[in-house]
Parts: sequence; C-alpha cells; structure tokens
Amino acid sequence: VPQSELEEAINAIEILRERGARVHCITNSVAQNFTANVLLACGARPSMTVSPEEIEFFVDRCDALLINLGTLDLERRKTINSAMVAAGRRKIPVVLDPVKCDISIPRLDFARRLIGRHALLLKANAAEAAALDGIEAGCRVVTGKVDVVDEDGRRVAVANGVPLMDRLVATGCVLGALIAALCAVAGSYRTGALAGLLWTGVAAELAAPAARGPGSFQVHFIDALASLDAATVREKARLS
Amino acid sequence: VPQSELEEAINAIEILRERGARVHCITNSVAQNFTANVLLACGARPSMTVSPEEIEFFVDRCDALLINLGTLDLERRKTINSAMVAAGRRKIPVVLDPVKCDISIPRLDFARRLIGRHALLLKANAAEAAALDGIEAGCRVVTGKVDVVDEDGRRVAVANGVPLMDRLVATGCVLGALIAALCAVAGSYRTGALAGLLWTGVAAELAAPAARGPGSFQVHFIDALASLDAATVREKARLS
Amino acid sequence: VPQSELEEAINAIEILRERGARVHCITNSVAQNFTANVLLACGARPSMTVSPEEIEFFVDRCDALLINLGTLDLERRKTINSAMVAAGRRKIPVVLDPVKCDISIPRLDFARRLIGRHALLLKANAAEAAALDGIEAGCRVVTGKVDVVDEDGRRVAVANGVPLMDRLVATGCVLGALIAALCAVAGSYRTGALAGLLWTGVAAELAAPAARGPGSFQVHFIDALASLDAATVREKARLS
Repeated sequence: VPQSELEEAINAIEILRERGARVHCITNSVAQNFTANVLLACGARPSMTVSPEEIEFFVDRCDALLINLGTLDLERRKTINSAMVAAGRRKIPVVLDPVKCDISIPRLDFARRLIGRHALLLKANAAEAAALDGIEAGCRVVTGKVDVVDEDGRRVAVANGVPLMDRLVATGCVLGALIAALCAVAGSYRTGALAGLLWTGVAAELAAPAARGPGSFQVHFIDALASLDAATVREKARLS
Repeated sequence: VPQSELEEAINAIEILRERGARVHCITNSVAQNFTANVLLACGARPSMTVSPEEIEFFVDRCDALLINLGTLDLERRKTINSAMVAAGRRKIPVVLDPVKCDISIPRLDFARRLIGRHALLLKANAAEAAALDGIEAGCRVVTGKVDVVDEDGRRVAVANGVPLMDRLVATGCVLGALIAALCAVAGSYRTGALAGLLWTGVAAELAAPAARGPGSFQVHFIDALASLDAATVREKARLS
Repeated sequence: VPQSELEEAINAIEILRERGARVHCITNSVAQNFTANVLLACGARPSMTVSPEEIEFFVDRCDALLINLGTLDLERRKTINSAMVAAGRRKIPVVLDPVKCDISIPRLDFARRLIGRHALLLKANAAEAAALDGIEAGCRVVTGKVDVVDEDGRRVAVANGVPLMDRLVATGCVLGALIAALCAVAGSYRTGALAGLLWTGVAAELAAPAARGPGSFQVHFIDALASLDAATVREKARLS
C-alpha cells in the first residue's frame, strides 16, 4: 500500500473532525442510538428519520447517505427508494450495508436491485458478500478478521480491530455510517472506507485493554473514537 | 430571579424523587432507551408505546405526556393526535419537542397545528424556535449555550450545562421528558422547566470532569442525575 | 430444591457460552439494543427483525423465539402470529413477555390468545401475571423481589438480584431473551428459566457494589454477564 493512501485516510479523519459532515442514516432500530453517538463522537452530524413523507427534506440537506438493511420493513423500503433518487440527484456518496441479506431472500433481492441501479459503496461481511457475489459494486468493503477494500481490483487489507467487537451489537452498522461520513469529506469511496476501517479498528485496540467486558468496551470505544489522534493511527495502522 | 423560584424548582426535584410520576413518551426511536433510563434515574416511571390502538390506555394512566417529533411517521402522527385529546381531557401537562422542524416542512406544519390547538410547554433549540416564531405557546423553553424559559414575557435564563452534551445524541430529547415529569409534580410549566434545566445542567457539570469522552460522559451523567442533591443544585445553579 | 436442578441450570449457562444459540427477538423498540448486547455477552446470537415479510426466514434459522409485547403495534401483531406458527412447526422454545398487559385491554386479549394457542413459557411481573390469572401456561415465571418458576405446580424460588435493576429500563425484557436462549440449550423450560434468573441475578449482585448509579450499573452488569463463572453462580445462588 502506498504511504500516500494512509495519509489520505488520516487526512479525511482530520477534516471530518474539523468541518463535520451531515449523514442521513436509514438504519435498523437496534443500531440507531449507537450509530448516532459514534457519528457525534467523530465530528459528524447524524439524522435518522425513516419515514417516506419526510425523507427528501433530510437527504436534501445531508452530505452522505447510509442505507442499512437491518430491521427492513415496507416503510423503510419505500423510504430507501426515495432517498436513493434524491442522493443520486445530488451526487452525494451512498453506503449500503445489506445486513443479513444471506438469511432473507426478499432482503437479498432488494439489495441486488439497489446495487444494480446506483453507484455506491457496498460494506458487507463475508456471508453477505458471498450472497451478493457477481453483482458489480463500484467499491466493496468486506469485513472480517482482516477487512478488505476492493475498488476495480485494486485491493487493500486492514488488519486492525479486536475480537471484542463481535460481542457488541451493531459495530458493523456504525462502521458503515462512519464510512459514509468520511466519504463525504474524502471525495472518494476508497479513502473513506480505508479511513473508517482504521478509525474504528485502532479505537477498538485502544479501548480493549481497559475493558473488563463488552459493556465497558463500548464506553471506552466511543471515548477512543472521539480522542484518537493522527499519530496513533499512523503508528498502529496495519495495511497491506 | 427571585430565590423562591429556585427553591420551588429544587422542591419539584425532591418531590419527583420521593413520589415518582408516570410519564408517557411518544418519542423518536433513537432517544427511547436513553429517555427511559433518565426518567428512571430521576424517580419517574416511563411508558413508551407509539401505537394508535393502545395509546389511550397509557395516557389514561399517566401524569404527564411528552410529544417528541423526531422520527415522525404516519403512525406517530395518528397516535399523537389521540394522545393530545386524552391529555386535554385529563388536564395533564404536555411537553412538545418539535425536533428538527426547521428542516422538514410537513413536520413544521404538524408542530404548528399542535401548538395552535393545545396549551402546552414548547421546548426547542434556537433553529426550531425560529421556525415556529409567531406561534403563541403558553410556556416556551429555548435551549442553547444559555437556556431561556419564557412564560408570558416573564423570562429566566439558566447558564448550567457543558459542551460535551452536544456530543451525545438525544440530550435535548431526554430534557423534554424530564421536564414533563417535573411539570406533573410542580403543577406549573415554568417551575417544571426550570427544574429540568437545572437538574440536567448541574448533573452534566458533575459528570464532565470525570469523563474521558462522550461514552463515559453518558454513564456519569445518568449516575449524577440519580444522586444529585438539593444542596449541590442550590450551590451550582446559574440563574438570571 | 434438589441440588441437581442447580447443576442443570449451571450446565445450561456453560453450554450456551460454548456452543451459542440463535435467538430471534420480536421485542419492543426501547429494549432492542440492550437485549442484543446481553445475548451477545452471554454467548447467544440475536436477530431482531419485526417485519411480517421477513419473519419466517429468521424464525426458520433460530433456536428459540422471544415474543415481547412492549411497544406492540399492528405490524408486530402480524409478525408475532406468523412467528408463532413457524416456531410451532419447528418445535423450538418460545418465551412470552406480556409487558404491561395489565394496562392495555387489547394487549391483554392478544396475550391471552397466544397463551391459549401455544405451549410456551410465560414470564411476567406480578401485575401482568395477575391480569393473566386463570390462563394455563406450560411454565410460568413471575418476577419480583423473589422470582418464582412454576411448572405444573412444581415451584422453585430464586432470591438473587438487586434493587438497582428497577432503575434500569428493560432488565425484565433482557431476562426474557436470555431465558429463551437458555431454554434452547437446556431442552426444558424449567431449567432455562432457572438458569436465566440465576445468571442475571448473580451478575447484578456482582455489578451493584462497583456501581455509582444506574448508568455505571448497566456497564458493570453487561461485563459481569460475560465473565460470570460456574463457581460464583453455585456459591451465590439462593434457591428455595
């Protein structure tokens, strides 16, 4: 990985902190509170409405859009479709997190249609990515023990993070939201994805040693996201 | 500010702690959990259903009603209308928090109709209050660096609180719910509002020095809300 | 209480930790996040969708089902009916938590119909249990200062737990979800219920002395749920 990629990612983190970015999140009801708190900790400004009557007013004022398919229902589907049109018109970055699309066929079909119709960043775990295999996405992040960003065959792997993240609900969901915020300031899906993986992965590494379990890990994780500095990201980044 | 106003506010805090109050909250899905935990920490008893089929059973048993317009949708609109009728019949206090009504025109219209039809306490930030300017509300709380309670031109300013509150989602939402609980025991919107601003503002000041970021701030804030005593509120109150 | 009952309950805790269990939770929006985090802390794997279009895909893959009637609405009713049919077909354990059915008549009617139609474990507080009196449930857990498990007249009482649990929202809701997970591995409602009461009650006793209020109590409680060992449960269990 060229050193310049790391520096661009760190730069995106610093710009988000200084200038902020408004991220509209259509996300599942389990993750909404944690997602909003992570965005605020990192300098972004969240909005979270999921109603079709109001969505355009919010997308018309935001800098990035997160579409997370957890707790998908008919209202969320309608809202997502309207939001995607509004985001396309405004050419803002869109991150799609097709949560558990490997389990539900209607959800998988819905995710496929979204990817086929819009240029977006797809963030998925291995099972979800496998279910969506063969669908071309502009940029793809596959999370796991090692996370991989893949844009048109140019791949970069990030080996940061800790196992405790799997004992906390919605860590993947908040990653998607943070990547959306970072894409808005970075101007590129690839840099936004890399910055989001580094920021959450390194913050988790700082939080874990002080944690006595998943409860205190969450508290330390949010604190670390808010206070992490460029030098620490640079020192701890494990890219290849 | 007459000393008696401060003492009435402190009195309301102590009564809520001793006797409790049932607050029904029609609030956004992002704030529900934090709101319920803040009410419980302060001695109130929350209920949170938002379905039109059941709302009357809950409003018929509560001592105060919170209407928060975050994540507004058609079901919440229907429920709010029924709840307002039931609250009016029972003459219990109602607090309206018109979250982000400055962004969504349908939400602004809905907020205007509610205020026009019912005597309630309006709690808003500066942008929301400006969007609703010209609408008469019985009592108005405008939050900001300094919070202002305005009832028929009698104004009181509260300068408590810390900047970290803006890094935590829904601190404004929980303030509205706590004010509703305090109005129920105080018997006056003005005293309830003052008591809620003091209780959250002073608790935040106690929590902030021990916090290493927004994650631990939330934990300390809830602990401080539960343990705050009258002497500390009296000592730290900054009213003018 | 025969010593063997305690050992079977401890055994269930250890099996859940080692092998895990997938629990689908149709639960209220206030409790979703805390419920998912408690299940993950204890080794279970939660899913939380409440939409009727997708529910069968999730119930077809889970090992136990939680039905919690908080924030009940028309969509949740429809989803619960479908989920119960799918769970019955697969013969997986079902836990029903009829939250606040003593307040809402339509909710009480709905709870009655569920109990009449399906063999399930009913977990309720005293007021909810009284409202449902006379309805036969296979196994019944009534929570309070002392919790009681009653299966066909064979009763066992659990006196673990701390008062601080009442200052935290949804502790009863998370207990129901954990019992569902434990029933899946124990193969019996009675052992699952006993294991869930012991695990949460003893974890709360470990968490309380370190807590300075309900905020830090929640953090310590989740940590304790994740780290509790068999020897401590055995030592602190108060069964009669």
